[in-house]
Amino acid sequence: MIKVGIVGANGYTGGELIRLLHKHPEVTIHALASRSQAGRQGWELFPALHGTALGAEPLLNLADPRLYECDLVFLAVPHGVAAKLAPDFLAAGVKVIDLGADFRFKDPALYEAWYKVAHPAPELLAEAVYGLPEINRPAIRGARLVGNPGCYPTGILLGVAPLLVHDLLAAPLIIADGKSGVSGAGRSPRPDLHFAEVTGDFRAYGLPYHRHIPEVEAYAEQLGKKEVKVSFTPHLVPIPRGLFITLHLAGKTGATTAGLTRVFQDFYAEEPMVAVLPESALPHTKAVLGSNRCHLSVRVDERTGQIIVLSALDNLVKGAAGQAIQNMNLLFELPETTGLTALGIWP
Amino acid sequence: MIKVGIVGANGYTGGELIRLLHKHPEVTIHALASRSQAGRQGWELFPALHGTALGAEPLLNLADPRLYECDLVFLAVPHGVAAKLAPDFLAAGVKVIDLGADFRFKDPALYEAWYKVAHPAPELLAEAVYGLPEINRPAIRGARLVGNPGCYPTGILLGVAPLLVHDLLAAPLIIADGKSGVSGAGRSPRPDLHFAEVTGDFRAYGLPYHRHIPEVEAYAEQLGKKEVKVSFTPHLVPIPRGLFITLHLAGKTGATTAGLTRVFQDFYAEEPMVAVLPESALPHTKAVLGSNRCHLSVRVDERTGQIIVLSALDNLVKGAAGQAIQNMNLLFELPETTGLTALGIWP
Amino acid sequence: MIKVGIVGANGYTGGELIRLLHKHPEVTIHALASRSQAGRQGWELFPALHGTALGAEPLLNLADPRLYECDLVFLAVPHGVAAKLAPDFLAAGVKVIDLGADFRFKDPALYEAWYKVAHPAPELLAEAVYGLPEINRPAIRGARLVGNPGCYPTGILLGVAPLLVHDLLAAPLIIADGKSGVSGAGRSPRPDLHFAEVTGDFRAYGLPYHRHIPEVEAYAEQLGKKEVKVSFTPHLVPIPRGLFITLHLAGKTGATTAGLTRVFQDFYAEEPMVAVLPESALPHTKAVLGSNRCHLSVRVDERTGQIIVLSALDNLVKGAAGQAIQNMNLLFELPETTGLTALGIWP
Amino acid sequence: MIKVGIVGANGYTGGELIRLLHKHPEVTIHALASRSQAGRQGWELFPALHGTALGAEPLLNLADPRLYECDLVFLAVPHGVAAKLAPDFLAAGVKVIDLGADFRFKDPALYEAWYKVAHPAPELLAEAVYGLPEINRPAIRGARLVGNPGCYPTGILLGVAPLLVHDLLAAPLIIADGKSGVSGAGRSPRPDLHFAEVTGDFRAYGLPYHRHIPEVEAYAEQLGKKEVKVSFTPHLVPIPRGLFITLHLAGKTGATTAGLTRVFQDFYAEEPMVAVLPESALPHTKAVLGSNRCHLSVRVDERTGQIIVLSALDNLVKGAAGQAIQNMNLLFELPETTGLTALGIWP
Repeated sequence: MIKVGIVGANGYTGGELIRLLHKHPEVTIHALASRSQAGRQGWELFPALHGTALGAEPLLNLADPRLYECDLVFLAVPHGVAAKLAPDFLAAGVKVIDLGADFRFKDPALYEAWYKVAHPAPELLAEAVYGLPEINRPAIRGARLVGNPGCYPTGILLGVAPLLVHDLLAAPLIIADGKSGVSGAGRSPRPDLHFAEVTGDFRAYGLPYHRHIPEVEAYAEQLGKKEVKVSFTPHLVPIPRGLFITLHLAGKTGATTAGLTRVFQDFYAEEPMVAVLPESALPHTKAVLGSNRCHLSVRVDERTGQIIVLSALDNLVKGAAGQAIQNMNLLFELPETTGLTALGIWP
Repeated sequence: MIKVGIVGANGYTGGELIRLLHKHPEVTIHALASRSQAGRQGWELFPALHGTALGAEPLLNLADPRLYECDLVFLAVPHGVAAKLAPDFLAAGVKVIDLGADFRFKDPALYEAWYKVAHPAPELLAEAVYGLPEINRPAIRGARLVGNPGCYPTGILLGVAPLLVHDLLAAPLIIADGKSGVSGAGRSPRPDLHFAEVTGDFRAYGLPYHRHIPEVEAYAEQLGKKEVKVSFTPHLVPIPRGLFITLHLAGKTGATTAGLTRVFQDFYAEEPMVAVLPESALPHTKAVLGSNRCHLSVRVDERTGQIIVLSALDNLVKGAAGQAIQNMNLLFELPETTGLTALGIWP
Repeated sequence: MIKVGIVGANGYTGGELIRLLHKHPEVTIHALASRSQAGRQGWELFPALHGTALGAEPLLNLADPRLYECDLVFLAVPHGVAAKLAPDFLAAGVKVIDLGADFRFKDPALYEAWYKVAHPAPELLAEAVYGLPEINRPAIRGARLVGNPGCYPTGILLGVAPLLVHDLLAAPLIIADGKSGVSGAGRSPRPDLHFAEVTGDFRAYGLPYHRHIPEVEAYAEQLGKKEVKVSFTPHLVPIPRGLFITLHLAGKTGATTAGLTRVFQDFYAEEPMVAVLPESALPHTKAVLGSNRCHLSVRVDERTGQIIVLSALDNLVKGAAGQAIQNMNLLFELPETTGLTALGIWP
Repeated sequence: MIKVGIVGANGYTGGELIRLLHKHPEVTIHALASRSQAGRQGWELFPALHGTALGAEPLLNLADPRLYECDLVFLAVPHGVAAKLAPDFLAAGVKVIDLGADFRFKDPALYEAWYKVAHPAPELLAEAVYGLPEINRPAIRGARLVGNPGCYPTGILLGVAPLLVHDLLAAPLIIADGKSGVSGAGRSPRPDLHFAEVTGDFRAYGLPYHRHIPEVEAYAEQLGKKEVKVSFTPHLVPIPRGLFITLHLAGKTGATTAGLTRVFQDFYAEEPMVAVLPESALPHTKAVLGSNRCHLSVRVDERTGQIIVLSALDNLVKGAAGQAIQNMNLLFELPETTGLTALGIWP
């Protein structure tokens, strides 16, 4: 059994790691820690834990030695914090998967330009591996430090990868119209996340310079082997979980829905976590609710030459905790889908 | 007092006409009619009518002579039906505002290409006026037959008009990423509109060839005085009402958020139903819930040269019934905002 | 025109007063004030105010003399605060309607037992009038200080009044199972009111000793002229507004649904704000969304002898701001429904 | 591996059986059948099945011999239909768990009085076992025909059982105020279940004579060994899943919250699927979303002597499909929690 710890077990991503790891057949949850909520019992933070052994245990603080007894820790903490914690874990022989932004970039200057802080551990960036298995699997296998992708970049990169790899775009611009469920904004209460204000509402936020842009650009350029720019507009959807990306792309002459659907199906034929839908279907966020899958469709508007790619996933699973566990499975040479095969909940 | 009738009083648009006209100081609701629900009392269809005189009256059938005693009828019926009803009303001296698609096009061929039926009254198209007051007010004033715009076209055209009129786009393509509340899909029960399937879900539908495309293209070309194509991707949001448009447009060199915000504010300075928000704000659908206003913001992404326009309105008010009443006010030479000044409901 | 001020204009009740008074034909909103948000513009707090004159004005602080120029101020502030503000307003000749708990009780000991603070102005309690027009109209007419009822007490008292007045209960116990929309919990962000936690959830809270109990008991005893106890269990419903009460009461032998429905219809025959529904209908909170009406139904379970009363209202309108305006109309001898006749929004 | 079939695989209960059995380590899903949707592929009905082998298979019709090769069939069909199908399955050696009402009653007269049809197989009622493991486990173990309880009766009986068994009620009346998520009303589209009408709404329905009453009374009397009547008022909550029961009961003198909490904790100490919450917590439906657990709290209102019991479960899991699998585990002598240990999803 792999002994794992979770730092930041009090937030939504931490809670989702608990939910998924609780059912993982090769894992023991060895340590749950929190900077702000140490001492509180699990069920106080996650009422689904009532009546379980895990729910009765208090969260540890970050200095607790149990964390260092783990084989792996997941860091579900704000950017800037993870890079301060990671060196000690690695020095103690504990592998690290960071669910924040600290280890997603090779270039610390890029990180610093967008996140407005000096990187606390730039010396680790060369070693850190970007944890999007569908495009980076071989590098993940041997790693001990993984930067787990952002939720939006996961949805955008999975949606655009087949087109970039096969050089099917007529212009180097990815217009990504993103829609996220509210858990993507974190658990801390804010006036604009009050139930009464979000329910019945739809809005945009944070445009035009969202921090997920450089992450997408960096890996999109790697895939397409040429420069590409991203124009990204995120929106808040009144759903607890779920992430939907609509990509608007200039297609090359002759592109068709049937043709591109085949390209996508071939590209992802062996991928267990990506389903390219039949032409008679379109993605729903709810079809992947609680599951680690990404659903994709592609359409060509022959009147305008535009390619529209639709990508749906659960921001807390394939967009965060599930993907982190997929990476963990790779690190420990388990079958990649171990513990991750649950279907989405419907309705 | 203006005597009005509503045909299709049983649907959501019909109900919204009732709600708004009930408070209109210059209007008497003289006849409520329905093809499918004649004989049922108002409160059976709209429980908000409990305890009102209107709620106790049964809906009339379409042959009822009271309809022909009206000064104006609103037609809230499917496309194809309105054009069959309109000639008799006009012949009887009753003005007509059609909330469907039958009188939105000058060219019957365009209608037939997209709606897949022969137009039942092509001889009326020359006379019919497109009822988007912000771009067509003078023509509406003298009319007796108005084609009320679609909800999406209202949001898109109000969002793109200042850019087209001032020739500020670098390419003749409007990418419109639309998001609509569920009432936009009508009141008839459907498996995919069941509460249990929509709640918690976000999805796209009906792409890439939605019937609102030719309507937008026709009037966008009029505004810009040159050809423009529309790529339109509609989505369903789990809210009862509300429509949000995100326009992705190629800007000309040198465009800035501050500059374009000023262009928009000047363009709409005298418009009572359009608010261009200050730069520190962004639109919410909920801010216009139940009101006849459209809220707009514009942003320039200087990294990519893209212009992003955000447009929010209530699909049943500014996107349907409210706009129809705005047109009615123009037809009868009332102040244009009469009966339409209510604020949105928050929260 | 009546000049009114609102203290606490930043909260949901304050915002609802703005929304309703904005349309009131006999009122000028003269002063909007806030303890915590003074200086912010109206639209920052209520985005529905974008583009309106009111939205552009900054909120005043509580010392602003404009407040004292008003004919009436509405106090939408926490309990304990209103009773400190009221004496100065009254001394300046400004009438006061308090939307909190400070002036709902004749007996300061009762207030102190449930609210755990000394009453700041017990000398005003003799003069203060309980503002539930349907049971206390004559007293309200001549008043200058009104204690506006709580939302739950409004729903419970309107539901039980016909039974108490006609002595139709077999036991002196009102079991009130209450369900409230989230705006009832106020606008301040809290972890348990975060959208992601409330959506999809249903829960009870605050039982068994909610502060609305003594308010109901006091006025129920006045209505029934004998002692009655209340067992009250409130629940939180994932809706922004709306309040629903299910009363479980022991009926006397021979009670029938038809008979009691007639009793209710007679009791409320002249009441413009209460609708007793026909036997074929049941209340919905949404049927009164945004309106000042209360919808009631009564049923007898002949197998058990239980009477079940169902009561629905909008907690921010008939449960707060709308009722306060109904009281204002009475204070100023306007027709009681002035500015309050809007229908509920559907859907 | 146990070969199972599902009849009625197209509805919400059928879909939930698929979701849970798909992860059950001792089960093979051998046959999915539907009366109305035979021939459609799984993913057309449950988009979560995209990309799975199960999703690609068409649903069978009810005559398909594969159904008779199963060890067990689950019947998720309307009442009256199951009792017509069961005899053939039993004759073929296939065990049957019916998720409808046909095998919940020992007395066919009771069934006929409330369901208004003659029972199609009264001869099987003596053999059929009521499948609420927490109160009927020994009888379920040896059975071949199980009547799975209704969702409301599960919540009510688990909530009242400790009080009945220990004779702690002062009066033989159970007032059950029930609140259900919308999936409890089935998947067929209906005007009153349209998203636009349910969202933002709360309402009661079907009172005062709901068909779950005689089911509760029958088993409550068995538990308490004396007559007890149920007054039941169901409500519809705008959530997709979840069931919440508030019981209002007359307590005996001296009852306390602490004392009854201990009684409940002792009563359910060995039950893996029931958690009695600590006194500092209260149930949420969302805490059991997707899980097979029931969460309970009990409170005593010492002012009135009322006992209030709160019971939360997922109507499709512990209220239907999960409980059916719990029964299946008992029938096949597997550990009772096999395949049923997933935590609820939060948020």
